[in-house]
Amino acid sequence: MIVSAPGKRHPADTKVTDLLIAYAQRRLNEGEAESEKQAVIDRFVEIMEGLAFPAQLSREIVAALEESLAAAPVDQPERFVDAVKASGEDTCAKLVAAYLRQLGEQAEYVNPREAGLYVTDEAGNAQVLPEAYDRLQSLGQRQGIVVFPGFFGYTPDGVLVTFSRGGSDITGSILAAAVKADLYENFTDVDSVYAVNPNLIANPKEIRVVTYREMRELAYSGFTVFHEEALLPAFRAGIPVCIKNTNNPAAPGTKIVSGRETKDAPVAGIASDKGFCSIYVSKYLMNREIGFGRRLLQILEEEGISYEHTPSGIDNISVILRERFFDEETESRVIKRIMDELHVDEVSVERNLALVMIVGEGMRRSVGVCARATTALANARVNLEMINQGSSEVSMIFGVKADDADRAVLALYQEFFTAQNACPQPAAIR
Amino acid sequence: MIVSAPGKRHPADTKVTDLLIAYAQRRLNEGEAESEKQAVIDRFVEIMEGLAFPAQLSREIVAALEESLAAAPVDQPERFVDAVKASGEDTCAKLVAAYLRQLGEQAEYVNPREAGLYVTDEAGNAQVLPEAYDRLQSLGQRQGIVVFPGFFGYTPDGVLVTFSRGGSDITGSILAAAVKADLYENFTDVDSVYAVNPNLIANPKEIRVVTYREMRELAYSGFTVFHEEALLPAFRAGIPVCIKNTNNPAAPGTKIVSGRETKDAPVAGIASDKGFCSIYVSKYLMNREIGFGRRLLQILEEEGISYEHTPSGIDNISVILRERFFDEETESRVIKRIMDELHVDEVSVERNLALVMIVGEGMRRSVGVCARATTALANARVNLEMINQGSSEVSMIFGVKADDADRAVLALYQEFFTAQNACPQPAAIR
Repeated sequence: MIVSAPGKRHPADTKVTDLLIAYAQRRLNEGEAESEKQAVIDRFVEIMEGLAFPAQLSREIVAALEESLAAAPVDQPERFVDAVKASGEDTCAKLVAAYLRQLGEQAEYVNPREAGLYVTDEAGNAQVLPEAYDRLQSLGQRQGIVVFPGFFGYTPDGVLVTFSRGGSDITGSILAAAVKADLYENFTDVDSVYAVNPNLIANPKEIRVVTYREMRELAYSGFTVFHEEALLPAFRAGIPVCIKNTNNPAAPGTKIVSGRETKDAPVAGIASDKGFCSIYVSKYLMNREIGFGRRLLQILEEEGISYEHTPSGIDNISVILRERFFDEETESRVIKRIMDELHVDEVSVERNLALVMIVGEGMRRSVGVCARATTALANARVNLEMINQGSSEVSMIFGVKADDADRAVLALYQEFFTAQNACPQPAAIR
Repeated sequence: MIVSAPGKRHPADTKVTDLLIAYAQRRLNEGEAESEKQAVIDRFVEIMEGLAFPAQLSREIVAALEESLAAAPVDQPERFVDAVKASGEDTCAKLVAAYLRQLGEQAEYVNPREAGLYVTDEAGNAQVLPEAYDRLQSLGQRQGIVVFPGFFGYTPDGVLVTFSRGGSDITGSILAAAVKADLYENFTDVDSVYAVNPNLIANPKEIRVVTYREMRELAYSGFTVFHEEALLPAFRAGIPVCIKNTNNPAAPGTKIVSGRETKDAPVAGIASDKGFCSIYVSKYLMNREIGFGRRLLQILEEEGISYEHTPSGIDNISVILRERFFDEETESRVIKRIMDELHVDEVSVERNLALVMIVGEGMRRSVGVCARATTALANARVNLEMINQGSSEVSMIFGVKADDADRAVLALYQEFFTAQNACPQPAAIR
């Protein structure tokens, strides 16, 4: 069992991790942060009171927390922040192990250092080291319930380093892979992964089974119930993942697996995201110039710009990227470099684009999915700025104007997930 | 007027340029090639007899041809071949100028060296030098008809170098641009450019007006009536080009222009070509790796491989390339490099692909063209391996299995160029 730090009790609440960050920052800036520290302690005390912990046990857990906060190296700010943040998960793991023992279970807290969860020394963005898997494997042989804090590991030299935010999912996936688990249940706060973002369409279809690849593509839209780095260890080890609702554990949840039956449902879901732009470049006889595309991408790389897609014609290529990487200053600099270094005929930028994608393992074996999708979009008067489908893929990506994106998602949802010929219900768009 | 060398009199005939190449090769290999030389002379003599040339004039033209063959530098094989090949166009230009004078026209043969058609020193693949345009400009002020041999120019040092095969079209386009012509008429052997390859569909729609960009994309299919490098000078100078039939000059031909009215015809034509393959690469979290795409293309560049398109998903990218660049040995080497250098999860190659494209300036402003195309393809049971449409383009490219390509072209042609609901007529496929 891998535990996170306590989350929000109500929408206006603050997560314990955010309380700890506030503590760490004030402590670094002002030398003391007693009230922030007390806020963290109060939360744990409240939980333990709610669970009717004996006073002595409660005091021990609070003392251990205060000790680890005091031991954090304030002279090394990044390591200090990581150590403080990690104490939320660490304390919670101790608390849960103690509670399980109160209930009569055989349960023990295990520290990531003792268990060998070795990571790289990148503060706030640790990556698991390959040797960690061998060391962690023996956890599977322990008797009873192992309660393990998520979110952090240790360098081989013993420095505490956290994963990126939300990293308890990463710990869970690593441990599931290390012990070759039959299943990795990930408890979050939704009943299911949905076929479309529920902020766009009310009460969308729940997804029961989805493949790793489909899940990854659906997560592209920013609509994530699961840390995207977290799927990797489970994916590589072939461990099925089940997303469950902590507040409704009886719900079946969504299972993420290697392969699924796609006969009746070529499309698993629809994802969309706004905030894209495209750089269009044309040059007569471009396709005879070996290295043109590489040099264009090299300019972007040298400018530190990540890109998404590069649809191309014979003599032209477009680069689709997120607008946040491309402010006006960057735009003028990049356009000048493209003109000067690649001697192109034309270069232009289009902003306010959205990407809408349909995702499904069954698509590439199913004649006509694209026809259904583009017909639905045409009927909704959505013009296609870009279409991108690869040669062995689980997704089909449409570039549309940002203003058309929600209408496009609705049209595709109706085509693939509601009864045929249902009337469009724009009211369903929130 | 720019002239080529004499072509075929009947399908089994040999073009004069090929007779000259045979002469040059045997002369280089065996030191003599009298019968090959005689074959060339006989062809010109036959033409001049057919035009009732005075015997003296005929002898002068043959003597000049023999002189230029004798003067070609046999100790420099590449320059020798270029000089020999060029004598076909050069002799023909002298002959045509003489014939026009016989008819009472004011006409003069002009030599490319004298006129200043300066090119780079790349045997068989000359590129025009920018200063040539200024020098050639004065040709427009000459009185009467200038008869100019196509296919070759001279380096500023006076070395004769030919363009790539079919290069008389290039000379014509360069001269049209240099003298800022109102129109460049290019006489070939078809009445028109067609909306689809007439080898695939009998009696296809003739295209009256097409833009440079559309023409370039249509030429991609290998179905060319016009040398693809040749369009560039006319395109850059904005000179309209009219493709005419030498054997039917009364036919209106096809005009190539900068822009056209697209209201009623979003699609100008359909092109297709076989012999493609795709390299599929997938790696979990690929899209977070800045430089991944660039490094993949760099491997191909270092292996000397040109590619066509790179459709991509979130964690995968496909590279579409021509199979002729990718034999089995190259494939194993490239796959090994991709595995070793990019640490991907999966790489695979799919062969026997075809690209089918619909081309038209009107497409990007027309909602539903893609829906019509993909529905027609789905109805013809053609599965789409790849779709590629950029953000500001005149084409939409579909990757299909090679076996499906002709059926795909027929389906698209029927959708966009015949009356709606016409019955499929597979018999129309030759």
